[in-house]
Amino acid sequence: MDQTQIVLELNTKLISIIEDYKKGISDIHPFDIAKDLQDLRDIEINEYKNICKKIPSDLFAQILVNMPTYIQEEITNIISEKKVAKVTSSMDSDDASMLIYNISQKDEDAAQTVLSKLNDEDKQIIEELNAYEEEQAGAFMQKELFSVNINETIDTALKRLKKEKDLNILHDIFHAFLTDDENNYLGSIGLEELILFERTQTFKELPKDIIEHYSFNDKEEIDEVVSMFTNYNLNALAIINSDNKLLGRVTHDDVRNLMQEQDTKQLYSLAGVSDKAEEEESIFKIGKNRAFWLSINLITAILASIVIGLFDATIQSLVALAVLMPIVASMGGNAGTQTLTVTVRQMALGSIEYDDAKKTIIKEVIISLVNGLLFAFVIGVIAYFWFNIPLLGIVIAISMIINLVSAGFFGAVIPLVLEKLDIDPAIGSTVILTTVTDIVGFFSFLGLATIILL
Amino acid sequence: MDQTQIVLELNTKLISIIEDYKKGISDIHPFDIAKDLQDLRDIEINEYKNICKKIPSDLFAQILVNMPTYIQEEITNIISEKKVAKVTSSMDSDDASMLIYNISQKDEDAAQTVLSKLNDEDKQIIEELNAYEEEQAGAFMQKELFSVNINETIDTALKRLKKEKDLNILHDIFHAFLTDDENNYLGSIGLEELILFERTQTFKELPKDIIEHYSFNDKEEIDEVVSMFTNYNLNALAIINSDNKLLGRVTHDDVRNLMQEQDTKQLYSLAGVSDKAEEEESIFKIGKNRAFWLSINLITAILASIVIGLFDATIQSLVALAVLMPIVASMGGNAGTQTLTVTVRQMALGSIEYDDAKKTIIKEVIISLVNGLLFAFVIGVIAYFWFNIPLLGIVIAISMIINLVSAGFFGAVIPLVLEKLDIDPAIGSTVILTTVTDIVGFFSFLGLATIILL
Repeated sequence: MDQTQIVLELNTKLISIIEDYKKGISDIHPFDIAKDLQDLRDIEINEYKNICKKIPSDLFAQILVNMPTYIQEEITNIISEKKVAKVTSSMDSDDASMLIYNISQKDEDAAQTVLSKLNDEDKQIIEELNAYEEEQAGAFMQKELFSVNINETIDTALKRLKKEKDLNILHDIFHAFLTDDENNYLGSIGLEELILFERTQTFKELPKDIIEHYSFNDKEEIDEVVSMFTNYNLNALAIINSDNKLLGRVTHDDVRNLMQEQDTKQLYSLAGVSDKAEEEESIFKIGKNRAFWLSINLITAILASIVIGLFDATIQSLVALAVLMPIVASMGGNAGTQTLTVTVRQMALGSIEYDDAKKTIIKEVIISLVNGLLFAFVIGVIAYFWFNIPLLGIVIAISMIINLVSAGFFGAVIPLVLEKLDIDPAIGSTVILTTVTDIVGFFSFLGLATIILL
Repeated sequence: MDQTQIVLELNTKLISIIEDYKKGISDIHPFDIAKDLQDLRDIEINEYKNICKKIPSDLFAQILVNMPTYIQEEITNIISEKKVAKVTSSMDSDDASMLIYNISQKDEDAAQTVLSKLNDEDKQIIEELNAYEEEQAGAFMQKELFSVNINETIDTALKRLKKEKDLNILHDIFHAFLTDDENNYLGSIGLEELILFERTQTFKELPKDIIEHYSFNDKEEIDEVVSMFTNYNLNALAIINSDNKLLGRVTHDDVRNLMQEQDTKQLYSLAGVSDKAEEEESIFKIGKNRAFWLSINLITAILASIVIGLFDATIQSLVALAVLMPIVASMGGNAGTQTLTVTVRQMALGSIEYDDAKKTIIKEVIISLVNGLLFAFVIGVIAYFWFNIPLLGIVIAISMIINLVSAGFFGAVIPLVLEKLDIDPAIGSTVILTTVTDIVGFFSFLGLATIILL
């Protein structure tokens, strides 16, 4: 099937979805429409614009939130600011504020133009959310929630819920958030409890033990919300301010995104990459950040070279040493990375705490000692047969044991110490570790060779 | 505060929690009790046993499911099989089957003894779940759910829900799962919809557009459930068999666990560690698995050494080469790991697909070319001043460019090709990459030195 035909078919499919949607009979999830629209990106820009124009704003809002950020940005770039404003006002407040925030990062003027086209309420909410620091819980909350007054009847509240659901203001409702007349947060009641009571009752009359009291302060770090959801098995959480006023809520989908972001950050940090920098559109900015970690690696590599340089006379008299020396360093780096990765991850998952430090270090040293003995034997035999110098086999074997044991030890100690110092144990630990394993590897191998062989 | 005092205080605290729980007035989440109990693990074993004996089985069940697996196992080891059976029958079916499965992995007889002490229904359910393959969705499902017959009234169904909630059979209910008289799955209705209708209505009479039709086959791989939850923003999903019979459900907390497991696997794979093996209690088994990847690394390190060996005469005549050569290899390895990690992660998150291969590779090659030029200049100048040989600076600069560009190229290509071949791009890719960067690094540096310097 050629390009034009694919475009044509997708186009027709989209148009029929849009028609169904307008009639209210579409059963396709916006995520799937978003995928189709992403596949269309290669077509001629004007044709693409035309399709975008045809999609009603409320559907477009749902489609956009199901797209990766960089495609969101591509699309908001090609549709009019008026349409972006319409789409934004159809979104949940957390998605809307994120969209405006992303636009403002690229083009502050465009963001202001869109904001100016919103009604006052929408504008105010977006400005409220975007006033938070990037890592504060308030920046992630959704203002739309089902709040109920403790004095009203269930029936009154449910009628309001029905109205707001029909208007597409509320969805994904799991709790009624209880407040008093001053909007003080009093706790939440799960719908699975609420549904069991007579509608004529007021919330005040309901038994106290069905009320949950979890909440989270808007100014605190969002990362802790993730542990609350995981530990207490939540699916939504009230966000309150320091005066206990109910401000919004965070839901399970936000938490899934946050978990993925945390894991991406951890993985990237261990590899010497910044998750924030990688999101930049400019290759230059991405490269610049990577160059930072490469610079640090260059320094440590030069340190290792200086160590080698100490033994230049030894190498001169036996070139086999130059041939074999990277093996010891490489095995140490690998074994250390294994230990480091497991330790960092288990600390992040809460399975290792600083109190378990001794146990963890002993375990890792034993593992690396056993593997050290194994690989010492293997490489010792290989070196012996390769260069026919028995003592060379012994030298490389001993240095392999030394380097693997120190790799296991430092692989566990480095993240534990960083954590103790309140430094993210994933950031920078790899480079510290490989500095150790390179230097110990080269020094022990060449040092032993100088003593034993010469 | 000394050890005995801490134990005493925790002990007293636990006893008062248990009393509150029995009276039904405890507002402490089992997760927090689990944490306290974990902290007690250092105390004398008999004292620990005594505390465990005092905790009622239904509370104990909730505490255990909030503990890491290895502590669960420690505890089930020290309490009687009769108590384990009681605790198991208080658990949700997915947790119960997991507990029995974990016990059976260590001690098949103990698992059978526990099973034999369960009532027939519990036993049958656990055996049903444990009959699934480890990766099948059925192995993760919870049999407890709120299923309703399409012909009954909402009121009848809710009365049943209330009864089962009071008996602690059901909790975390988000949907009514619709079935016909033959238990065929007909779709689900969110409680946020259901709560809006008159209780006298039957489910048949409700509007069709509030029914969701997501479901998942019990024999399919659980990993896809994670994408369904993420893509369609679900919080629970019906599990059906190939005959469309409703079997159970998977909930958002399962999905959070699965996401964490997937990310752990990815991180570990990139570091040459197996997530399954690391869960083993035996240090020997953990070490054996790590030794496997270290063996492969040893082979590739020897390959790199063979490359160095090709140039032994060159090194003999200029030892500075031995001193500098690890720098080129190390920088290549690091730059390649940056690219590889980003590519693997973005592929896993769905931001890069095979169709984007060309774009990704070009981006990575440009980044590595720019950084290659930068570090070529830096290391060229350093090498020149260090050894006072201008041509040596030129040699290391050129080989730095060659190795960084190939690192960027292969860092992107390796995972893309593995994915195309249906191989997990995280597994083994690091070792392939460092083989390339080591060999290209040593060969280009020593090869150029042979041509230019000698």
